[in-house]
Amino acid sequence: METLIIYDITDDNLRNKIATILKDFGCMRIQKSAFLGDLNTNLRDKLKIKLEKILGDEFGNIQIYPLCSKCFGLRKNIGENYNVEEEMIL
Amino acid sequence: METLIIYDITDDNLRNKIATILKDFGCMRIQKSAFLGDLNTNLRDKLKIKLEKILGDEFGNIQIYPLCSKCFGLRKNIGENYNVEEEMIL
Repeated sequence: METLIIYDITDDNLRNKIATILKDFGCMRIQKSAFLGDLNTNLRDKLKIKLEKILGDEFGNIQIYPLCSKCFGLRKNIGENYNVEEEMIL
Repeated sequence: METLIIYDITDDNLRNKIATILKDFGCMRIQKSAFLGDLNTNLRDKLKIKLEKILGDEFGNIQIYPLCSKCFGLRKNIGENYNVEEEMIL
């Protein structure tokens, strides 16, 4: 199931750690603080536990949205897609 | 239909304009660059046109995700929710 993960984390180090975890789960960056990945229920649960652990008591918010094929098909994209090359600079 | 809107906009002025439009459509901020709102197809289409117009040729990305009740029910929230008071400072 396509899964959208969005996060709002102020701390650079923590934000980078979260991005690394999401990449490890095979998710692809679609915006600076948003990833998309094809995750089944088991993987989604594992990801949630991992993200809860890494966030701990730090200030921040992470949201996970599973998207059925109908919802995913209805999504709209406006403007440029995230540029992977740009990621090297950030 | 619950609709998630996420954006990645570098320009402060443009980002604020987008937030204002989303508030005008009755959406609620859930993260610094993410809003959630109950929008029907007609309103979603209108919002898309408005956001396309305001983004124009500027660099940035906006994504709109309609969420059926099943998908919406499966969402997970980790950490603190967005603090409205904080918005005043930004």
